[in-house]
Amino acid sequence: MYETLGYAARTARAPLEPQRFERRALGGADLLLEIAYCGVCHSDIHQARDEWGGATFPMVPGHEIVGTVVATGAAVKRFRAGDRAGVGCMVDACRRCASCLRGLESYCEQHVSWTYNGTEQDQKTPTQGGYSTQIVVDERFALRIRADQPLERVAPLLCAGITTWSPLRHWKVGAGSRVAVAGLGGLGHMAVKLAASLGAEVTLLSTSAGKRADAARLGAHDFVLVTDDDAMARARGRFDLVLDTVSAHHPLARYLELLRLDGTLVLVGAPDKPLEVGAFSLIPRRRSVAGSLIGGIAETQEMLDWCADHGIGADVETIPVSAVNEAYERMLRSDVRYRFVLDVASLRR
Amino acid sequence: MYETLGYAARTARAPLEPQRFERRALGGADLLLEIAYCGVCHSDIHQARDEWGGATFPMVPGHEIVGTVVATGAAVKRFRAGDRAGVGCMVDACRRCASCLRGLESYCEQHVSWTYNGTEQDQKTPTQGGYSTQIVVDERFALRIRADQPLERVAPLLCAGITTWSPLRHWKVGAGSRVAVAGLGGLGHMAVKLAASLGAEVTLLSTSAGKRADAARLGAHDFVLVTDDDAMARARGRFDLVLDTVSAHHPLARYLELLRLDGTLVLVGAPDKPLEVGAFSLIPRRRSVAGSLIGGIAETQEMLDWCADHGIGADVETIPVSAVNEAYERMLRSDVRYRFVLDVASLRR
Repeated sequence: MYETLGYAARTARAPLEPQRFERRALGGADLLLEIAYCGVCHSDIHQARDEWGGATFPMVPGHEIVGTVVATGAAVKRFRAGDRAGVGCMVDACRRCASCLRGLESYCEQHVSWTYNGTEQDQKTPTQGGYSTQIVVDERFALRIRADQPLERVAPLLCAGITTWSPLRHWKVGAGSRVAVAGLGGLGHMAVKLAASLGAEVTLLSTSAGKRADAARLGAHDFVLVTDDDAMARARGRFDLVLDTVSAHHPLARYLELLRLDGTLVLVGAPDKPLEVGAFSLIPRRRSVAGSLIGGIAETQEMLDWCADHGIGADVETIPVSAVNEAYERMLRSDVRYRFVLDVASLRR
Repeated sequence: MYETLGYAARTARAPLEPQRFERRALGGADLLLEIAYCGVCHSDIHQARDEWGGATFPMVPGHEIVGTVVATGAAVKRFRAGDRAGVGCMVDACRRCASCLRGLESYCEQHVSWTYNGTEQDQKTPTQGGYSTQIVVDERFALRIRADQPLERVAPLLCAGITTWSPLRHWKVGAGSRVAVAGLGGLGHMAVKLAASLGAEVTLLSTSAGKRADAARLGAHDFVLVTDDDAMARARGRFDLVLDTVSAHHPLARYLELLRLDGTLVLVGAPDKPLEVGAFSLIPRRRSVAGSLIGGIAETQEMLDWCADHGIGADVETIPVSAVNEAYERMLRSDVRYRFVLDVASLRR
């Protein structure tokens, strides 16, 4: 067992505090990863505060984990000590169901072991996340990170990156596609970068005029202020895909109008209350509203390799782990461009 | 010009009454169709009572029209006098936009000329529907009906048939597909017949236990009572497609749970108020909610031919046109199995 120092929420109403806990002993297929950085995802707040229900405490959040392999089990084949590696939103799945066999482990029909606030495949042992010094993970759920990549900018790819990459790929975005990204936060800024890198014509939809310059800098070709009725009317019927990263409640009808025939609005943000969908927003152009999770492991690796090849990383603000509670407050005010990353070395000093 | 006798709503609050009006003179590409039967669609009520807004009066409803060609313009190639023909929900479209060129005239980007409560391509001349003795229509928007088909059972195929056929085809339903049909009315009963004829395993979802026997008779392989929590739980994750024909407000979350990975719920009924869609109903299995209209002309012909080949017609109750107001009231009580068809010959007596 590996004694580990992390930052944990002890209850839904408590700030995160230092906590010691144990990682499992290294199994034959396991890696021990010394964590260098961990991104801070909005879902960390939702779960640490039990806003989605069913949270278990104490909870060490964090699922945008990057670091260095320091030990490997006897059967490990794809990693060795000294390699860089990442862990995303899941650390295991059944590996046998139709979804797992198709490489869609996040849609496992049996049980996904989420990286924290979840359980291992025994459905009992709690999992703990990356706001901590180290993690033990099966190599099949670890991702390869090239040695030349800036680790702190890679960390958010493990959730924000794959959550936006997966729908872009599933809905076949490429050259000639017209993609609108709704919302410019952690997910949105990755969506803009990734969609542009795939050759799409990218438009940012935002309720904040102040995001216009950043949208262009990140690679968007156009910007539409959602509160500007004329601009929205001009954009009507224009997009193949609206990638909706907004996690606050918002009027879907306005966004659906922007889709062309057979266009799809994909929810990747997760508003806690249901959204309203009018039949007349969908029927006349055979539009769809879909939802999408993170991708599977192979797709996550594909995305990491793509980002390395194309020089894509997240825009981050690196902070010590002790600043995480303040970071949560700033995230709730959208005061970060565009992802906090915890410098986990700060826990070892 | 052809003097025509129809039944019209003169205002949104008036019952339908006999009214004389004129059909245009026969153009080179036009057919004059003596109408034999016209199906009564739920949308006729919505429009005659202006429940969707924007209705124009006087209004002769009816878009499930079948009859016999009695005259043809000089340029008509595909029909001659004596042929049987049908007219569905549209009588024209721009014929030049990307949708029209793909045979998706109902999704015309310029202007669909709906069969009634619409306008011709000049966007001024009102159209009038099939609760009337005859209609003049461009042959490109007329459908061929085989001489051996029972006309009154064919009529509802022109709307109820194609509205359910088009999504079954678009979402590639066939042998091995698992399809649930929500609601057993005019649309639902056609959806069950057509999905079964395509080789799908069909389940009827209904809030009425009394529909179980009819569902089986129409070809459904299974029946789930939507109010039975245990039965609904057992059906969770089972279907590739839920074809939702319910036009009353209903809780989508219950139906979405029934979809497997990448499954789609297609709205073809059109509740007038928005439906609630929770992000968590969609995201964990990458589900979609879509809407679908009637199909294009070529697809409508394909469906009519399929139905002729497979002995499929609507289950109808044939009534004189003078009974249409009473029929509306019975439809609002779901007191019809499953489509009223007006015997238009009753207007000529």
